[in-house]
Amino acid sequence: MKLLKVHSVTETKNIIDSMLYKSWDFFEEIHVEESIGRVVFEDVYSSIELPENTKSVVDGYALKSKDTIGAGESMPVFLDVLGHIKMGKNTDIEVTNNTAVYVPTGALIPEGADGVVMIEYVENLDKDTIAVYTPIAVGEGMIEKGDDIKKGDTILAKGKRIGAVDIAVLCAVGIEKIKVYKKLRLSVISTGDEIVDSFGSVKIGQIRDINTHLLASMALESGADVSLRLLTKDVFDDIKEAIERSFEVSDMIVISGGSSVGNKDMTVNVIKALKNGEIFVHGVAVKPGKPTIIGKVEEKAIFGLPGHPASAMIIYKIFVDYLIKKCYSMEEEKILIEATSTENIHSAPGKETYQAVELFYKDGRYEAVPIYGKSAAISKVARSRGFICIDENKEGIKRGEKVRVELF
Amino acid sequence: MKLLKVHSVTETKNIIDSMLYKSWDFFEEIHVEESIGRVVFEDVYSSIELPENTKSVVDGYALKSKDTIGAGESMPVFLDVLGHIKMGKNTDIEVTNNTAVYVPTGALIPEGADGVVMIEYVENLDKDTIAVYTPIAVGEGMIEKGDDIKKGDTILAKGKRIGAVDIAVLCAVGIEKIKVYKKLRLSVISTGDEIVDSFGSVKIGQIRDINTHLLASMALESGADVSLRLLTKDVFDDIKEAIERSFEVSDMIVISGGSSVGNKDMTVNVIKALKNGEIFVHGVAVKPGKPTIIGKVEEKAIFGLPGHPASAMIIYKIFVDYLIKKCYSMEEEKILIEATSTENIHSAPGKETYQAVELFYKDGRYEAVPIYGKSAAISKVARSRGFICIDENKEGIKRGEKVRVELF
Repeated sequence: MKLLKVHSVTETKNIIDSMLYKSWDFFEEIHVEESIGRVVFEDVYSSIELPENTKSVVDGYALKSKDTIGAGESMPVFLDVLGHIKMGKNTDIEVTNNTAVYVPTGALIPEGADGVVMIEYVENLDKDTIAVYTPIAVGEGMIEKGDDIKKGDTILAKGKRIGAVDIAVLCAVGIEKIKVYKKLRLSVISTGDEIVDSFGSVKIGQIRDINTHLLASMALESGADVSLRLLTKDVFDDIKEAIERSFEVSDMIVISGGSSVGNKDMTVNVIKALKNGEIFVHGVAVKPGKPTIIGKVEEKAIFGLPGHPASAMIIYKIFVDYLIKKCYSMEEEKILIEATSTENIHSAPGKETYQAVELFYKDGRYEAVPIYGKSAAISKVARSRGFICIDENKEGIKRGEKVRVELF
Repeated sequence: MKLLKVHSVTETKNIIDSMLYKSWDFFEEIHVEESIGRVVFEDVYSSIELPENTKSVVDGYALKSKDTIGAGESMPVFLDVLGHIKMGKNTDIEVTNNTAVYVPTGALIPEGADGVVMIEYVENLDKDTIAVYTPIAVGEGMIEKGDDIKKGDTILAKGKRIGAVDIAVLCAVGIEKIKVYKKLRLSVISTGDEIVDSFGSVKIGQIRDINTHLLASMALESGADVSLRLLTKDVFDDIKEAIERSFEVSDMIVISGGSSVGNKDMTVNVIKALKNGEIFVHGVAVKPGKPTIIGKVEEKAIFGLPGHPASAMIIYKIFVDYLIKKCYSMEEEKILIEATSTENIHSAPGKETYQAVELFYKDGRYEAVPIYGKSAAISKVARSRGFICIDENKEGIKRGEKVRVELF
């Protein structure tokens, strides 16, 4: 079989951008209450101003600021109290020269007032008179109509993953329903003659399927729906059938090979044999995970990942998660944890090297402990908290060096 | 009304530990496929060894290591090839002196062999003979039965939030169902005479309810279920009825006050008036959020949070999220992002100060930009990515100082 050129990670992402990515124009409109974790489909604008009226931001007295000029600890100014404004109520009272009106936090500012003095700076002399011990600037203690949000302001941008604070702002401007991206449907296929169902019985020499549920879980975390979880032997027709079944009900396929040598080529050959099947990448200069396959069938993306769970996870994060996020117009906004490597980490010359690590928080800083070990060890995989990426031009990491850890 | 002592954050957590926390002994058994994000109810042990048989971790030839002593680039040793072992198949072949058997990665190691040489160091001389150009140590190229996971090993600890890697290890040892904590049911009540339904019409002086959906969303993110979302006026009987209704269907209540002055006392009085209602904390030395209330009714926790969304969020994180995680036996394993403060940040003497920040990734490091502004500004809340905590004994943060940001 003729091998394609081995691509760098950056080249591979460019290929994904140009050959696989199509804008994913499917949305659903859901209630704000259900929207946590979903991704905004189009910019959301406010149709109102906030606050809708000028309001007090302190408990105090609304007044004319000019009446407080010269006020001080030893020289208060005296104002007549015209009344109290209740929360949530409108009022007819107008503040005139040398008068004041009591306003709790959040209450409307009455006509005529241009500032609010906090009660801490006020002494109640009698029912109708206060002494004010501080000068008040124009606008002090209050928020003007529209000061917070203006009509037409973008309150939520396309591609934003909705968090609690976003729900707060939607409620604040009264938006009940929001368009979010419809979830991409992804199918996961594991192949391998020695792989059997995770939860069934195992004969000598066989191992339980790990990748199907591992990768399906990662897809759920990426914000996709999982339509099928399939397991096949390394048999051309079986793999072909699994891919065909998957594409009927999904938008993307992730297939991960068993560890048998011929398997990767078989996946490639199956894809090529399918109607409109194309391979763009077969081999990426990345450690681990060189046998990565990227192609498409009938305009739908298909990824072939390495069989080993630790490698499959990393390739999933670099390429599959990348494409999903791109379809959802999500800015790549990874949270990277700064840590100190506890060991030397070797890199592979000319390849981007990804090293899984454990993370420990100790004496105010994180330590990243690289996870080595025989490649079949799932107990090591289970301890992986994230990974560090070593640039293809960099010669490994030294013990004690600062690294940035991307979380799984 | 007699005020209770104002407690520090640490004292308040101690009060939560001793007065509110009870072990939450409710679980449900679910399929591993559905378990992502749930919390492990009890330690999970492996009932098998992994690998279940000694296996190759490379593509190569299983052999007796002693036969390769002295082998080198210029002086290969020659071995007779007895056969090939197929993936997932058992075998009767036994490796004897000066023989070898081909094994792909993951295949069983035949009897008699104690090492595997990678094919890279092997030359096939003819169908039945290989030359080996490197010495192989005992155990090289293979993983022993039980080397990865032993029978009885804890593969998942109580209190762990299940991630993709945990699902991988559960599948590896064939565990199909797992006990996870039943979700705590939490009700959220917002009170305030000026607060109206988020999605209804608003009269002059009224504002839309933000806290109900904000805090409900945070509860969902903490791993709780939200049973009720209620909105009431600052009327004693209305608040009482809302609390009573909520406790019928939930395990915990979060009530957040409107901004009116008398409101907090009313919540306290309602709780005291309820059968077996107790108040433990009324006022915490924290900025923002001093008017925090913590109590219980009929052995169920009730939290009174400040009315302002930004403050409510922070108090939620410090105390409510803390108690939920404690009920789930979750180790407090916060991810803290190291960042540089772009501004001086003042702290309140004698109080822990929490400052909401935006986060920007720039030139390889994070910048934390404190979010100031008039306290009613929801647009500021929407930009909050996390917060920093300034110890009560520390005098603020200087511009350019390193800070650790906890994400919302």
